[in-house]
Amino acid sequence: MPIISHKGKAMPESPIRKLVPFAEKAAKEGKHIYHLNIGQPDIKTPIEAMDAVRNHKLDILAYSHSAGFESFRNKLADYYAKHNITVSSDDILVTTGGSEALIFTMGSITDPGDEIIVPEPFYANYYSFSTQSTVKVVPVISKIENGFALPSIAEFEKLITKKTKAILICNPGNPTGYLYSKEEIKQLAELAIKYDLFLISDEVYREFVYDDSEHYSILQEKGLDEYAIIVDSVSKRYSMCGARIGCMISKNKSVMETAMKFAQARLSPPTLAQIASEAALEAPESYYKETVEKYKLRRDTLVAGLREIPGVKVGVPKGAFYCIAELPIEDADHFAQWLLDEFDLDKQTIMVAPASGFYSGPNKGKNQVRIAYVLNRRDLKKAIEILKIALEKYKNQ
Amino acid sequence: MPIISHKGKAMPESPIRKLVPFAEKAAKEGKHIYHLNIGQPDIKTPIEAMDAVRNHKLDILAYSHSAGFESFRNKLADYYAKHNITVSSDDILVTTGGSEALIFTMGSITDPGDEIIVPEPFYANYYSFSTQSTVKVVPVISKIENGFALPSIAEFEKLITKKTKAILICNPGNPTGYLYSKEEIKQLAELAIKYDLFLISDEVYREFVYDDSEHYSILQEKGLDEYAIIVDSVSKRYSMCGARIGCMISKNKSVMETAMKFAQARLSPPTLAQIASEAALEAPESYYKETVEKYKLRRDTLVAGLREIPGVKVGVPKGAFYCIAELPIEDADHFAQWLLDEFDLDKQTIMVAPASGFYSGPNKGKNQVRIAYVLNRRDLKKAIEILKIALEKYKNQ
Ligand SMILES: Cc1ncc(COP(=O)(O)O)c(C=O)c1O
Ligand SMILES: Cc1ncc(COP(=O)(O)O)c(C=O)c1O
Repeated sequence: MPIISHKGKAMPESPIRKLVPFAEKAAKEGKHIYHLNIGQPDIKTPIEAMDAVRNHKLDILAYSHSAGFESFRNKLADYYAKHNITVSSDDILVTTGGSEALIFTMGSITDPGDEIIVPEPFYANYYSFSTQSTVKVVPVISKIENGFALPSIAEFEKLITKKTKAILICNPGNPTGYLYSKEEIKQLAELAIKYDLFLISDEVYREFVYDDSEHYSILQEKGLDEYAIIVDSVSKRYSMCGARIGCMISKNKSVMETAMKFAQARLSPPTLAQIASEAALEAPESYYKETVEKYKLRRDTLVAGLREIPGVKVGVPKGAFYCIAELPIEDADHFAQWLLDEFDLDKQTIMVAPASGFYSGPNKGKNQVRIAYVLNRRDLKKAIEILKIALEKYKNQ
Repeated sequence: MPIISHKGKAMPESPIRKLVPFAEKAAKEGKHIYHLNIGQPDIKTPIEAMDAVRNHKLDILAYSHSAGFESFRNKLADYYAKHNITVSSDDILVTTGGSEALIFTMGSITDPGDEIIVPEPFYANYYSFSTQSTVKVVPVISKIENGFALPSIAEFEKLITKKTKAILICNPGNPTGYLYSKEEIKQLAELAIKYDLFLISDEVYREFVYDDSEHYSILQEKGLDEYAIIVDSVSKRYSMCGARIGCMISKNKSVMETAMKFAQARLSPPTLAQIASEAALEAPESYYKETVEKYKLRRDTLVAGLREIPGVKVGVPKGAFYCIAELPIEDADHFAQWLLDEFDLDKQTIMVAPASGFYSGPNKGKNQVRIAYVLNRRDLKKAIEILKIALEKYKNQ
């Protein structure tokens, strides 16, 4: 029998993969599950996007240009201009989700055995995509104690080797909700320039920023044009996860020409989804405002609720729609499974993502979970109440 | 300045990339170009698919299951059953085009430095995807003289090393139009089993089979379940290239579990396109019949026309919608460029794909071009006439 690859064996499973059978069993037993475990927003997709699809006039669903519709890329450039990011359509490559932008980025700048430094905890699939590219993720630890702020530059410098090709940040962060300050971005920019590294910034949560904080993109930073690569996506911005449209942005011509070769190989990003995504750009400002306001209230509800539970530690995330909470338990993997498998409160329970999946090695973040606040506030309150009672019961057994 | 990857540098450009600026210039000069260079069908997408999209009732465009909609995979299993391929929905992973199925397949079964044997000439992007996976394509030469039939098994055996992981065929073939016989598939199956290799069959042109020939899939072959991986796509079948929906099929559980990890990393195939693709399965039998009939007539028109041109050699392709033609010239790359840049017949010209892009080394297929017959017959006739006159003029200059 032929065998699968080392790489394939090394590919991590999704952090909640082990929980899925328990969730299915719980659902079969009639338990209602509040899903705090996923980044699938419950917000409606802009009607402009949905109508554009309903009103399409196509006879033939043809390949688009490998870099995406020209008209869409032009409008994207306008969108970025509004966010003080000056790019032309040539600096933008439309991809099949932010996921593919990450894959193209890694493909364009790394060879097998190269290294990418990533503040930890990080979006679990960074590890998957680097495994797919046989690249090593080198974690630099950020701590819950200071809200997952950027580790000191000295910590980064200790990790830089000849194999280091890039630093990859997520801003604002999944799973931490951390928003990097302008000062922190400047420090990273200097570091990238000093050591000739790419600075990759995953900004798929750009709009999700609270408390009058401002998002500062790496492409707002002067002098970084040859170093900066942005990963973006319509998934979260417009609650269009199923579109599978994102983009890769860089002013470095070699990077974009190289990424274009990967893009040509896979022919085209999805056509219908580009129609939807281009139309989504016509959504009124109020769409973003209302969405962000909603998430802010949810975040406040969540953080306040969590802080009332004895022994729970949580920061105040400034962005995205996740937080990492430390629980008064030892093994969040076990607890998350127990919640689905053994616990219920009037036939209701919650599903959370054990944070271990967002760390690169074993025994890190063992007592932490990631909570996504993609539920309405009433459900969120109910979910927190369930968590509180569950924690008591779990301790006393 | 940070540098791009060796892999990125090694990524081939699309075979027609160099021609694109000349085509753009020709178009600007007002020349009409008959496109014989691309695999984008002009056939209408089934109305069932287009209407399903127009009538969608979604509020939120959400991620689908990473393996694709369950309902779609079930219907796909029914579709394969009609083609004498017995698979269950668990053996099917919905991908973002056949392209992604190829990427997942290579990721699941190869590590950097491994080798895959591919009959040459081959679909140019096999080379791109293997470069992306830092895997080596080892070509086994098929010849225009015998219509690009399967090279002898002894030729394959000579090429097998410890690094060989798979044999990859395209059936029917792009760019050759060759359809493998049952006997040839059996020989390949034996070979795969003897040397413990995967046999990957790209069957995206399954329906495009002419002259009462029958397509014989590797999964119809008994005893091959652990070895066989099929790559498929809706792109050509339903003229839905822009959907970006394909699938990977295997009864080898380790392969599918591994591929699923790659699928989970990129989260989901496109949702709208899955709606369209699922609905396309409701297209009546007449849709396929009429499409195939149309292509058969086009093929006949093309082959008859080409054979009337002095010095042109071409076989009769039994499948897909391409053929490789040998022209009475020395350098098809130059000729293809000249057609766009210097030649016109009453402000009309043609664009063809130089065959060199479908071979793995330099100086192969130098006097060959790939012609896609995705034009209506009138246009096809006109295009052949242009080719004939162009060849005369080219010779005499
Ligand atoms: C930080 C981050 N980056 C990238 C992605 C990829 O999203 P998509 O491929 O849907 O654009 C996600 C999805 O959850 C994410 O959280
Ligand atoms: C032989 C072959 N395989 C795979 C593909 C990939 O097609 P898609 O990704 O659109 O399914 C093509 C497209 O032309 C092809 O010709």
